[in-house]
Amino acid sequence: MKEGTELVSSVLEGDRLALARLLTQIENDTPEGRTALNGLFSHTGSAHLIGVTGAPGTGKSTLVNKLTRYFRDLDRIGAGRRVGIIAVDPSSPFSGGAILGDRVRMRDLAGDPYVFIRSMASRGSLGGLAAGTAGMVQALDAAGYDTIMIETVGAGQAEVDIARLAHTTVVVEAPGLGDDVQAIKAGILEIADILVINKADRPGVENTERALRGMLQLAYPSPQIYASHHGDSAYKQMEVTFQDANQNRWQTQIIRTVATEGTGIREVGEVISLHRQHLQDSGEWNQREITRLQAELDALLQATLVSRWRGSISPIQYDNVFEELVRRTISPRQAVQKLLNGKEIHNM
Amino acid sequence: MKEGTELVSSVLEGDRLALARLLTQIENDTPEGRTALNGLFSHTGSAHLIGVTGAPGTGKSTLVNKLTRYFRDLDRIGAGRRVGIIAVDPSSPFSGGAILGDRVRMRDLAGDPYVFIRSMASRGSLGGLAAGTAGMVQALDAAGYDTIMIETVGAGQAEVDIARLAHTTVVVEAPGLGDDVQAIKAGILEIADILVINKADRPGVENTERALRGMLQLAYPSPQIYASHHGDSAYKQMEVTFQDANQNRWQTQIIRTVATEGTGIREVGEVISLHRQHLQDSGEWNQREITRLQAELDALLQATLVSRWRGSISPIQYDNVFEELVRRTISPRQAVQKLLNGKEIHNM
Repeated sequence: MKEGTELVSSVLEGDRLALARLLTQIENDTPEGRTALNGLFSHTGSAHLIGVTGAPGTGKSTLVNKLTRYFRDLDRIGAGRRVGIIAVDPSSPFSGGAILGDRVRMRDLAGDPYVFIRSMASRGSLGGLAAGTAGMVQALDAAGYDTIMIETVGAGQAEVDIARLAHTTVVVEAPGLGDDVQAIKAGILEIADILVINKADRPGVENTERALRGMLQLAYPSPQIYASHHGDSAYKQMEVTFQDANQNRWQTQIIRTVATEGTGIREVGEVISLHRQHLQDSGEWNQREITRLQAELDALLQATLVSRWRGSISPIQYDNVFEELVRRTISPRQAVQKLLNGKEIHNM
Repeated sequence: MKEGTELVSSVLEGDRLALARLLTQIENDTPEGRTALNGLFSHTGSAHLIGVTGAPGTGKSTLVNKLTRYFRDLDRIGAGRRVGIIAVDPSSPFSGGAILGDRVRMRDLAGDPYVFIRSMASRGSLGGLAAGTAGMVQALDAAGYDTIMIETVGAGQAEVDIARLAHTTVVVEAPGLGDDVQAIKAGILEIADILVINKADRPGVENTERALRGMLQLAYPSPQIYASHHGDSAYKQMEVTFQDANQNRWQTQIIRTVATEGTGIREVGEVISLHRQHLQDSGEWNQREITRLQAELDALLQATLVSRWRGSISPIQYDNVFEELVRRTISPRQAVQKLLNGKEIHNM
């Protein structure tokens, strides 16, 4: 308990080593980490959470890297963003890719006291992964990082769950990647606030943009989807678009980038800020916070109730009952009754 | 209890009135309905469950109607399908549309003792809706309906949840429907085994097919997506396609229909049967059954645990704790501790 309190103070004071240690505690879901999170929670709630997801090979990490530079460089004009990055790799238990990516980042962003990078490998269940990420985001938020990017690989349920943590979701695609691993799943488009077509200097970029635009229009038919291309006037144009449309609905934006060359990065950064502004002006920011907290509370409640109950029976008991269910000698409801110690169940 | 047992016998004996009564009990989630389901469960597991979903105006109900005729007409060649239909309308609390649709169906399918149609309005939570539908499917299955179509409107989470009940999912689209309500959500494509473009005699059918094909190829890139058009040789062609591909993965099929004229109906029916065959040959049928039962058991367990707990606190208690959470004076974990009566929580 005392340990936890000390950790809280150190993290709030900006101690980077303490923060790194806390993140490890949270990742391992230790009692010390939990206690510290309780103490830090009142200091959270001001960071802009940006989810960045995409298949391997889309250049997502380079994009995040360059966006970090963009947000840091705002310091020169007094905008002063402090950037935290959490790179989640649910597909690999060893997160080799993430560690390699970190090395490259370290080189580019080393020595900047207002950038904090942390990678997180897959451990335990997907639910656990999302919960762990939520905790890490809270720690960075409390430590004063006002812009937090959560980078995930792929487009599975885990990514969707993690994206739900974010205020702004950026989905990264790249042209000419024809095989399975590069595929973007249709479901991921539903959560995209911004679609980035990276490696836009490659052949096939027109096809990729057309396909994405087709998917978007099928999903959200509207004549106002704005075709942006990397260029200087995009920001102004968009403001006009939004004023014209005069709707409270955000239109998913498609932006082309060549992250390795820095092309289009400024525009992505500007649209991210514009989306934040949109959320705040429309009242959606507060609404999303309440929804997020409600979801987090209910998930934690459910997990706690289920985990308490699971602690009370053996896996063999569960398997035996499930086998009876599969053989259809008992019904699902009878299985629940058996598992809940044969007590009569009321109000089911 | 005795009531329930009588109901079970009558339903198993093919008493249509008893079945109708049981479905009402299940819809209202009465103790009698629950008891009956326990008794019927051992008689379930043989029906082919077909989910049919699509936006309003796509002609989904007409398609289901014609498919029912198709499956019934197989009787002439000794294939003898008994068809149950559950029409779920989560968007309307009064299910006016569903009832109107039923009247049309009654006229076409009236007097056929091997067709049973039931519409279900939205009641209570989405989870409750999926659970109620699962119960109704079990009742029809036990009553001897070997082909059960579950028709849902739209493409929200409720439809996806209900579609998870099905072995085969058919998503219905129509050309030239440009406004919001007609939109297919990208997420729904992920669950589609068969995509039907109904009203294929309308202008814009090429665009719709191209867009759907683009979404599919982006989602599951593969050169083997088979372009089927309504015609007689499609069935044979598909068999060849599958043999060539020699993969255990089902390729989502796109089929054009004009349901009002009966065009393409036979092909949809054949592809549905082919999908069933594919599931059985690949072992996926058994796997899906186990997954379905596991999901149903876990959902019922979770719901029971949560509902037992909810019964133990007042809404005001919950709201007060949630308000503290929103004000960030307590953390999510502290909120859980408060809600679970202040007891220390271990193993969280």
